[in-house]
Amino acid sequence: MSAFDIPTNESLKTPEQRIEELGIELPPAQVGVGDYEAWAITGNLLMTSGQLPWIDGDLKFKGKIGSDLSMEEGYEAFRLSALNAITQLKSALGELSRVKQIVRLEGTMGCAPGFIRQPEALNGASHIINQVFGKRGRHTRMIYSNNEMPLDCATLVVIFAEIE
Amino acid sequence: MSAFDIPTNESLKTPEQRIEELGIELPPAQVGVGDYEAWAITGNLLMTSGQLPWIDGDLKFKGKIGSDLSMEEGYEAFRLSALNAITQLKSALGELSRVKQIVRLEGTMGCAPGFIRQPEALNGASHIINQVFGKRGRHTRMIYSNNEMPLDCATLVVIFAEIE
Amino acid sequence: MSAFDIPTNESLKTPEQRIEELGIELPPAQVGVGDYEAWAITGNLLMTSGQLPWIDGDLKFKGKIGSDLSMEEGYEAFRLSALNAITQLKSALGELSRVKQIVRLEGTMGCAPGFIRQPEALNGASHIINQVFGKRGRHTRMIYSNNEMPLDCATLVVIFAEIE
Repeated sequence: MSAFDIPTNESLKTPEQRIEELGIELPPAQVGVGDYEAWAITGNLLMTSGQLPWIDGDLKFKGKIGSDLSMEEGYEAFRLSALNAITQLKSALGELSRVKQIVRLEGTMGCAPGFIRQPEALNGASHIINQVFGKRGRHTRMIYSNNEMPLDCATLVVIFAEIE
Repeated sequence: MSAFDIPTNESLKTPEQRIEELGIELPPAQVGVGDYEAWAITGNLLMTSGQLPWIDGDLKFKGKIGSDLSMEEGYEAFRLSALNAITQLKSALGELSRVKQIVRLEGTMGCAPGFIRQPEALNGASHIINQVFGKRGRHTRMIYSNNEMPLDCATLVVIFAEIE
Repeated sequence: MSAFDIPTNESLKTPEQRIEELGIELPPAQVGVGDYEAWAITGNLLMTSGQLPWIDGDLKFKGKIGSDLSMEEGYEAFRLSALNAITQLKSALGELSRVKQIVRLEGTMGCAPGFIRQPEALNGASHIINQVFGKRGRHTRMIYSNNEMPLDCATLVVIFAEIE
């Protein structure tokens, strides 16, 4: 899976159609694990809270990448965290076509000692964002490698999006 | 302490009045520990630098949450870091009623091995923000769990606020 | 090196002229290490991705600050990461005089156990930003201390800049 999988004719399709073509479903919106909101809008900027790799209320990926989890599992965990973030964008906007540009991706991950392949793992989030949003998904990003993670989740993803 | 402690009739009260009702005082504004500013404004967005749990120039909470400090002490450390951030908002704005919405909270904490109750600890910041700002305090947030912390402080808090 | 090294008559000089006076050259723009963009603009806000301490495609500073690297080397690593971020600002803007204000600096660093002098190390980024941009360089900042780092780099820097 790579950036080259971005569908052609992308401008003709909505993000929801691309999600369907990819054969995936967005996970249901998850309630936060503390006293906060899942998203906020200020001006034309929409930002999410940190999204864990939930499916139907279960944390699918727990433990540290590089020991409990392989790099490939870390990739999948970031992909699922990103899908949860996309769910929150949809909750905020109704239609994902209201996203003008994904401007920032934050990825936090639990790292085992000696693990230094974070960029490959975070590509799990970057690739799905690029696939779903096409050119509008091209984003900056920052990686944070943590020694422990909330609820022992493998990954957290925040998205900042410019909206119309 | 919970979100349900948000005062009623909140729209009739200023954040400063709520702070007084809570029986607390904002800590004095603290000088940064490096060559930077405590806050900046761009457009309608006000952002603070990372705020340590200072009181009168003393770091009240040092060490790692989960070993040196209990979860409850981590909660208190985050509450104090958030109060220091609110002090910076007031320094920037004069009156906290100029805050239209707290849009983002960043919390960084020193975590002992095996500590995974970060969301409960960060609620120390979220709760006081919600109590002081009411509906205007409802925010997104992101947790970063760190193996070491600047000056061995327990917590750091950044706030992004939309202003009028 | 300190904030007091900010050149006088600063309003008469461009950031590029100050860089020349400092006797330094901006490193060449580095391709990202994953599927993302080096910078994005939303409204008047320009943000970079995390910048490693590259020179000509080589990671100059690897390892953890406080063990593999001294605090002074951490300072130099942050300075070089910040110069890479300034290169990205220039790639985005053409002329650095289009920067109205540096509003936020994020610094992530690999920390050895017991290392707590992060603020001094991050001054390596803050000082050069202040030297190059003068008053327009005065910024907020946040430190993240990580147990491991991507590709074992010592430091990562993100800059948010308000542009004209």
